[in-house]
Amino acid sequence: MSPQRQRDASPPRGRRRASHSLDAVLSEAVALLDTSGEQALTFRALAGRLGGGAASIYWYVSSKDELLDRAADHVLADVLAAVQDVGTGDPVDDLRTMALRIFDAIVERPWLGAYFMRNTEVQPNALAIYERLGEQVLRLDLTPRQSFHAVSAVVGFVVGTAADMGQQPPEEVLSGTLGRDEYLARYAAQWRELDPATFPFVHVVVDEFAGHDDAEQFRAGLDLILAGLRLQAGT
Amino acid sequence: MSPQRQRDASPPRGRRRASHSLDAVLSEAVALLDTSGEQALTFRALAGRLGGGAASIYWYVSSKDELLDRAADHVLADVLAAVQDVGTGDPVDDLRTMALRIFDAIVERPWLGAYFMRNTEVQPNALAIYERLGEQVLRLDLTPRQSFHAVSAVVGFVVGTAADMGQQPPEEVLSGTLGRDEYLARYAAQWRELDPATFPFVHVVVDEFAGHDDAEQFRAGLDLILAGLRLQAGT
Repeated sequence: MSPQRQRDASPPRGRRRASHSLDAVLSEAVALLDTSGEQALTFRALAGRLGGGAASIYWYVSSKDELLDRAADHVLADVLAAVQDVGTGDPVDDLRTMALRIFDAIVERPWLGAYFMRNTEVQPNALAIYERLGEQVLRLDLTPRQSFHAVSAVVGFVVGTAADMGQQPPEEVLSGTLGRDEYLARYAAQWRELDPATFPFVHVVVDEFAGHDDAEQFRAGLDLILAGLRLQAGT
Repeated sequence: MSPQRQRDASPPRGRRRASHSLDAVLSEAVALLDTSGEQALTFRALAGRLGGGAASIYWYVSSKDELLDRAADHVLADVLAAVQDVGTGDPVDDLRTMALRIFDAIVERPWLGAYFMRNTEVQPNALAIYERLGEQVLRLDLTPRQSFHAVSAVVGFVVGTAADMGQQPPEEVLSGTLGRDEYLARYAAQWRELDPATFPFVHVVVDEFAGHDDAEQFRAGLDLILAGLRLQAGT
């Protein structure tokens, strides 16, 4: 869809006509969220980027909450396109490929955390991806309940990762004044000061924590779920 | 700790003296959040319940965000106490028991979603529970990296569940005007209207979705992770 440029000063049926396409509104909202975060997303700021008035945004969304829901779903449009060709190989491998592509869409997007893959009427891409994930599970020999729980587990882990990435960094990290490595190093230093007798596990993993890679951590957790799924499906 | 009732009109060292214990402040904050949700949590409302002024709360927390972090951690105090006796049985079974007790603390608490087990300086209970979970994994034959990833996967899934439960219900459900069953039934009805040719998985699981139990769904996902962990540890 391309933005419609024409305007209407007087509302035809009591409602102002949209001066941009929903796609253009959401693309700009995602760009604003990616660069400046959730606090920077105001209808005024978004309208400014679009070169119109806030009314042209209200034409599509009724609240900031709905705008964030739709923006979170908008980042899944590319994922949905990317997974259309997946689904002809091993079902669990294909499930894994899809989950990793969803991860690619959420990494570096802390603002997604609270709005990602919510079960709402305004996230058609999330529903379509849920279906595509499920179709891989349908190729396994599982009951409907096991299939529902398997996809719920994968989506739950993905949502948890998105929420976790959105929550963990303090403001300095989100704003970029504190680098991720320095941030992790600061925590690692605190962990090393803990009494080894009381926190043996923390001391065993502190180096792993200090140098951990989010993508590797995600894959490792996902692979535990999928190994359990293979066991259950007997593949 | 019991609330200290004495007050000080004039700050001794430029800062007002606390008129309540931190424990009392957090207990009231959790009670307020449980009954009325995050929006109802204001320093004024909390001070009113404590029978003091907002200054006595600022003695302990500097912002609402920190108050929510600490309140989220406060609900883990009982979990920490409950898991102290766990850790003498099968490591994976004990890990499961602990995760289920954490779940019990988060179910029915939608406000926890965005603040649960964040890696911050103000969540000592979360850190202690992370350690206790890790100590079970230490009893398995895994590398430090595998151990770190295993606990990260379990915590990530727990956090995801908390976030998911906090996010999914619309306002009518949180406020109690719409029951959970009606809410699920409303979605199920929408799912049944989707084209079965385009959404085969949705149609296979719609009945499971409509009648699903959150605790069972959590256990099923957790058990997939733990089955994968057993396989990895060769237990």
